[in-house]
Amino acid sequence: MRAVVMHAPGDVRVEQREDPRILEQTDAIIRVSAACVCGSDLWPYRGVTRQDGPAPMGHEYVGVVEEVGSEVRDLRPGQFVVGSFFASDNTCEICRAGYQSRCVRAVPMGAIGTQAQRARVPLADGTLVATPGMPDADLIPSLLAASDVLGTGWFAAVAAEAGPGRTVAVVGDGAVGLLGVLAAGRLGAERIVVFSRHADRQKLAVEFGATDIITERGDEGVARLKDLTGGLGAHSVIEAVGTQESMMQAIRSTRPGGHVGYVGVTHEVELPGIELFFSAVHLHGGPAPVRRFLPELIRLIWDREIDPGKVFDLELPLEEAAEAYRAMDERRAVKVLLRP
Amino acid sequence: MRAVVMHAPGDVRVEQREDPRILEQTDAIIRVSAACVCGSDLWPYRGVTRQDGPAPMGHEYVGVVEEVGSEVRDLRPGQFVVGSFFASDNTCEICRAGYQSRCVRAVPMGAIGTQAQRARVPLADGTLVATPGMPDADLIPSLLAASDVLGTGWFAAVAAEAGPGRTVAVVGDGAVGLLGVLAAGRLGAERIVVFSRHADRQKLAVEFGATDIITERGDEGVARLKDLTGGLGAHSVIEAVGTQESMMQAIRSTRPGGHVGYVGVTHEVELPGIELFFSAVHLHGGPAPVRRFLPELIRLIWDREIDPGKVFDLELPLEEAAEAYRAMDERRAVKVLLRP
Repeated sequence: MRAVVMHAPGDVRVEQREDPRILEQTDAIIRVSAACVCGSDLWPYRGVTRQDGPAPMGHEYVGVVEEVGSEVRDLRPGQFVVGSFFASDNTCEICRAGYQSRCVRAVPMGAIGTQAQRARVPLADGTLVATPGMPDADLIPSLLAASDVLGTGWFAAVAAEAGPGRTVAVVGDGAVGLLGVLAAGRLGAERIVVFSRHADRQKLAVEFGATDIITERGDEGVARLKDLTGGLGAHSVIEAVGTQESMMQAIRSTRPGGHVGYVGVTHEVELPGIELFFSAVHLHGGPAPVRRFLPELIRLIWDREIDPGKVFDLELPLEEAAEAYRAMDERRAVKVLLRP
Repeated sequence: MRAVVMHAPGDVRVEQREDPRILEQTDAIIRVSAACVCGSDLWPYRGVTRQDGPAPMGHEYVGVVEEVGSEVRDLRPGQFVVGSFFASDNTCEICRAGYQSRCVRAVPMGAIGTQAQRARVPLADGTLVATPGMPDADLIPSLLAASDVLGTGWFAAVAAEAGPGRTVAVVGDGAVGLLGVLAAGRLGAERIVVFSRHADRQKLAVEFGATDIITERGDEGVARLKDLTGGLGAHSVIEAVGTQESMMQAIRSTRPGGHVGYVGVTHEVELPGIELFFSAVHLHGGPAPVRRFLPELIRLIWDREIDPGKVFDLELPLEEAAEAYRAMDERRAVKVLLRP
């Protein structure tokens, strides 16, 4: 099969790899209908995180089940499925508490690679959720979004306790931040303020439900937000970047007793204890337990109540994966969908 | 009046100071019945935090109202009152959300000093809670504990979401940690594990409801806790120290999706973003909004359902404040009560 392999920072190739096969009897093999490039794929692409030797890429996927192991009970070949970027058994105590991304048997799908024609999905019953039937073609981008960016934005909004009566601020206008806006709106937030200085992203944010835009960032952005909130800050802040500046902007944007939901991968971030202490905020985040939300997100997409697929502003054949990475790296695209 | 003044690290004196008087019409003047030395008073005493020039000391207090300003509505001279270490209006949006220690008009009582015969309490209606009558002498230590250490331990347990079915771990066996044990028990925790290597503190922890003791600390302590919790860690962890080691021990002791309630003042602490991210814990803490809990804590003490005053293992006249600081600094005492 054809699959994306990263050889070194900036060096993404599409190569012939062996077709996956069942290794454990709880595995499924899927034919990938659509995959995409994640903001977190840019960390090794930019050399920020180290990678030893060539590595398969991709952890977002939708597809059709081709084969299942003998212990798979709930899935059968031919079903269209959406999965999360962590395989999980969905039965352990951590999964049952809603933290499937930290399942005691979690397997990162990024180590398997889904930017490929086929993929092995471990713990298939606990990981994959079947759609009610074969989706119309126009639903595929939204279902793919559910696999990570929507699920992650949704978790961030839940972690930030977005809800009725709340002012929600969103730090980061990438795909996750934009879908955090959408999630906050669905959760009933009264006011949704997004920090953004890009006209196209501002437009999408407003489509997704943003009520206010702040173009300043850092402490200037915080000051603007305080102006909008009677000097107090937002009740709920979604952090969807993962840098020192964005984390501090998120914490400082939150009123005492408010909630920060952070989902940007916080490489090289050090949180100053004493400032955090006196901020008196709630801080919660991490790798989103997307599996917790998949049934609900699939229903909302299936019923065409939400259209998160709009975050894909470029679609390329899998063979052009190198261009997909370049477009995201150079910020020419918010998010690129790949068709195997 | 006589009052404690710290002139420099290690240099605590009891001196003659001017009697306090009403400065704002929302003030009250109280005659202090009992005050005490806080773990946080040891930061400047040890020179860890800087202090310029002589400073009044103390922020924990119970006493009798002597005088009130013309705008004080709910209090009158002769009432016995308990207050928090932050004066608060208890009416602003932050107070109404339960974060009175971050009230928009908060005044730190430590800047006024309550290790004294009298004290001015700003925003008296929002800060002080009157007891049902004059307390019996044996209730005074417990009511004084409510003013900070009990209220802080209680907040930590609430922030850590201690409750039925939960295993709660407590990092720190000082007065706050010990009262975190008591709070976790009252909140219905199933199992309460305390990290402690001091026999006398272990004994008090067990009296307050601890079910398990771990004598190891740091990563060894974490490993022991994991042994006790099926490899997962505690649902709820109370952090009551405030050092880098204790914060990391608390975070690492918490299962994914679990809750850390931290109330140790985190001087010189830097939290590594990437470890925090993958821990997937909830982190909440800060200066405890003791005022939120005072009515309930006073009721529990008045009805003799709890006896938090046991944390005071030394009682001295105010004139011997220097010895009180020495005893706490040298860990000869858990907590010292001062009688003005």
